[in-house]
Amino acid sequence: MSAKNNLCDFILFGGHGDLAFRKLMPALYHLCKDGYLGENSRVITVSRRDISNEEHISLVKEKLIEFLPTKSFNEDDFSRFEKKLTLVTVDFAQNQGYEKLQKLLDEYDDRDRVNYLSTSPKFFGDICQQLFEYNLINENSRVVLEKPLGKDLKSSQAINQRVLEYFKEDQIYRIDHYLGKDTVQNIMALRFSNRLFMHLWSSNHIDHVQITVAESVGAEGRWDYYNEYGALRDMIQNHLMQLLCLIAMEPPCSLDANDTRDEKVKVLKTLRPITPAEIATKTVRAQYTAGSSMGELVSGYLDGEVKQSNTETYAAMRVDIDNWRWNGVPFYIRSGKRMQKRNSEIVIQFKTMPHSIFEKSNCCSIADNKLVIKLQPEESIELRLMNKIPGLSETMQLQEVNLELNAPHTDKRKPDAYERLILDVIRANPTLFMRLDEVEAAWKWADPILEGWESNLVPMKKYTAGSDGPTAAVQMIAHDGRSWNDE
Amino acid sequence: MSAKNNLCDFILFGGHGDLAFRKLMPALYHLCKDGYLGENSRVITVSRRDISNEEHISLVKEKLIEFLPTKSFNEDDFSRFEKKLTLVTVDFAQNQGYEKLQKLLDEYDDRDRVNYLSTSPKFFGDICQQLFEYNLINENSRVVLEKPLGKDLKSSQAINQRVLEYFKEDQIYRIDHYLGKDTVQNIMALRFSNRLFMHLWSSNHIDHVQITVAESVGAEGRWDYYNEYGALRDMIQNHLMQLLCLIAMEPPCSLDANDTRDEKVKVLKTLRPITPAEIATKTVRAQYTAGSSMGELVSGYLDGEVKQSNTETYAAMRVDIDNWRWNGVPFYIRSGKRMQKRNSEIVIQFKTMPHSIFEKSNCCSIADNKLVIKLQPEESIELRLMNKIPGLSETMQLQEVNLELNAPHTDKRKPDAYERLILDVIRANPTLFMRLDEVEAAWKWADPILEGWESNLVPMKKYTAGSDGPTAAVQMIAHDGRSWNDE
Repeated sequence: MSAKNNLCDFILFGGHGDLAFRKLMPALYHLCKDGYLGENSRVITVSRRDISNEEHISLVKEKLIEFLPTKSFNEDDFSRFEKKLTLVTVDFAQNQGYEKLQKLLDEYDDRDRVNYLSTSPKFFGDICQQLFEYNLINENSRVVLEKPLGKDLKSSQAINQRVLEYFKEDQIYRIDHYLGKDTVQNIMALRFSNRLFMHLWSSNHIDHVQITVAESVGAEGRWDYYNEYGALRDMIQNHLMQLLCLIAMEPPCSLDANDTRDEKVKVLKTLRPITPAEIATKTVRAQYTAGSSMGELVSGYLDGEVKQSNTETYAAMRVDIDNWRWNGVPFYIRSGKRMQKRNSEIVIQFKTMPHSIFEKSNCCSIADNKLVIKLQPEESIELRLMNKIPGLSETMQLQEVNLELNAPHTDKRKPDAYERLILDVIRANPTLFMRLDEVEAAWKWADPILEGWESNLVPMKKYTAGSDGPTAAVQMIAHDGRSWNDE
Repeated sequence: MSAKNNLCDFILFGGHGDLAFRKLMPALYHLCKDGYLGENSRVITVSRRDISNEEHISLVKEKLIEFLPTKSFNEDDFSRFEKKLTLVTVDFAQNQGYEKLQKLLDEYDDRDRVNYLSTSPKFFGDICQQLFEYNLINENSRVVLEKPLGKDLKSSQAINQRVLEYFKEDQIYRIDHYLGKDTVQNIMALRFSNRLFMHLWSSNHIDHVQITVAESVGAEGRWDYYNEYGALRDMIQNHLMQLLCLIAMEPPCSLDANDTRDEKVKVLKTLRPITPAEIATKTVRAQYTAGSSMGELVSGYLDGEVKQSNTETYAAMRVDIDNWRWNGVPFYIRSGKRMQKRNSEIVIQFKTMPHSIFEKSNCCSIADNKLVIKLQPEESIELRLMNKIPGLSETMQLQEVNLELNAPHTDKRKPDAYERLILDVIRANPTLFMRLDEVEAAWKWADPILEGWESNLVPMKKYTAGSDGPTAAVQMIAHDGRSWNDE
């Protein structure tokens, strides 16, 4: 049930961390500015840091000015926002300080409570237990879990089991910020409100799908953290799998959260397992070496103090879905750090026409129709079609045109993914959050790949920082007679 | 075979008429300016008018300045163009003056000759006969016929038969200037170079098609001419039927002129005849009454000297095509004078989705997908799809978006339809011209409707000048549970 007028206590655990300052506080500031936060709502930062409330507010202000887009910050809006801000100092490791939080929350003990856990996952269980022991979990409490949720099925289950001791599954919001992007939600609108796409959306007309999440940054700064996970755990098991689900799922019974998630989990359950015999031809893993990025020389993944690691900074694989709709339509997915450019996109590549009267007349070549859904650096959806080049040429000349499907009103600020997701938690709408069975199904598919890699069934390749990734990934898709959509 | 370097004698019969000054000379001027007219080509105006060549050139210049779009005329270009211009005075009614034309043409007797007949059709036969008798028709001669080509099948056959006594069918270019529009040619490009459309293009996915050619002007100025023909003969039998053919035809074997026209004629042959029993429910005819147009009071069709006429200024009808592709897909076509605005468009209306999870969730209504091909006043092609309205609303909100398919480079001047068509005659490419069997098949379909109307099986309705046409046309389509695309 949604909080009335969005009135709630928003409790931000790890609220002095990088994610909190970079994404969560700016999102809360915008929600407050745009009237989406209930009038008397509170934003309670729970942090190890022992500073005064005034110092906390100054720090939040300083960080907002640093991380908000230009011109978004203004003093009037901040003066309304700062009234909501409070700091509570808690030591998560020692489980000390919760009595101060209790005192604060007890002031409004029937209020909706959003507990946003932006801490290391190792504290998730303890935090939930303390909330329970201090009697801070009510019927209207929710808990938001940030990734990583484990390193494999077993460790993921361990984290989730502990949280489930204190919260019911429908109180748990496992966040995947990719799902908060407007363009990602538009995938459902496009697929299920246009007859045109509905009938094209299967192996009858689609040749293959590509999902790419490429980052230009490297692992520096958080090398130790990243080295525990790698591209498959950090990106593919969660973000890319969620995107794949939205592209591949059957129409849900309704827009209801569980109806939608029922369809997504069906996709995850029908992913064809990658066997040890296939793993070397269907997957690629690699680490970047020194190169250049955005015009600057950068070091390789193993050029730091630690010279040895089996963690991939790039992963690519061919995924098949064993159901009626997608039989014979491979999904090629890849994600890497230190790639040539920051670029996240989904490409729906339609099949080639069976025959061309234009090519027969030798006038021009025809590109296959594509739907290109771009998520980063800018969000857009483009339908690529052929049409006639205007003019008086003797034979008809064709060209590819890009039709931009995103809404034409671009002056308006686009809300960040975290604004949508935080607001959905306040509204108690879990549609865009991952249900336990989704997380587990994704790990069930990923685990055999991780095991195969640990057994060195697939060689660790290299790629130059700032390039398009390892040649092995090009060879993998070329083996099927296809190529990546790199322009 | 195409004229080498587009070198030809372009002989413009009726070259001092309205069409010649308004459309043909501006087109020739632009072709000359853009280098499409062979260097030593001549533009020989054949007219009743007995003036000097200098006076002729002055007149052409004056009219070019009047009818060319702003900034298109310039003295340098005209000085190159005027060198090509010659006048020959011929009295078409008396068949006098051809010896002067003979003398002129004999200077280059192996040159390609384009005889453009922009005279009343009653002279077509005699002009061709004179050209033959003066030995002015060679292997590389072509003749261009302007509409109207008859008032019914019989009179059309009579005109064509006389021309065919002197020219072979492949030398005859029956012009329909709608086919010269770039957007009309783009219909073929879109249909046959995009897998996306190819599979949607049938009764499986298309609910119905609408073709509208609405003029804001009335019949004044050429009342006597118009009153002999009316909307069905003047517009529907030719322009609208040609557009219908391009939408409905099967993919041709190739882009070759006869392959394309073979497919068009197949459509015309499969038009379901409108029987006397159906004519009152499937057709509407009407005349405009006094009203206002573009902010000015205008008189009705029967408000002039002649108070009585059975000629329709508006016609609408439901056309069915009896073949596999179009079974159950009606084509609603209409054309009228003194309509609310000048507007020519083709609407491909896709079927409604079988089910909507969005409407079920009561969030929004969904418009059916449409492809809207606009020919006048501006050419464009729009694909109308639904997508998500960006933002943070609680339930997903959808909106219709228009994707503009025409080429993005719009700074460039768009050649007029007549430039394309005149150039195609010079190049000896008859693809965009109507073959005899097409003209006859269209008349065979139209004749029973004309007869039914003459027998008053369908009442002559009225509509106010400046309106969207008679209510009977709204009722006709509403009877099928549909409505016109009037915005």
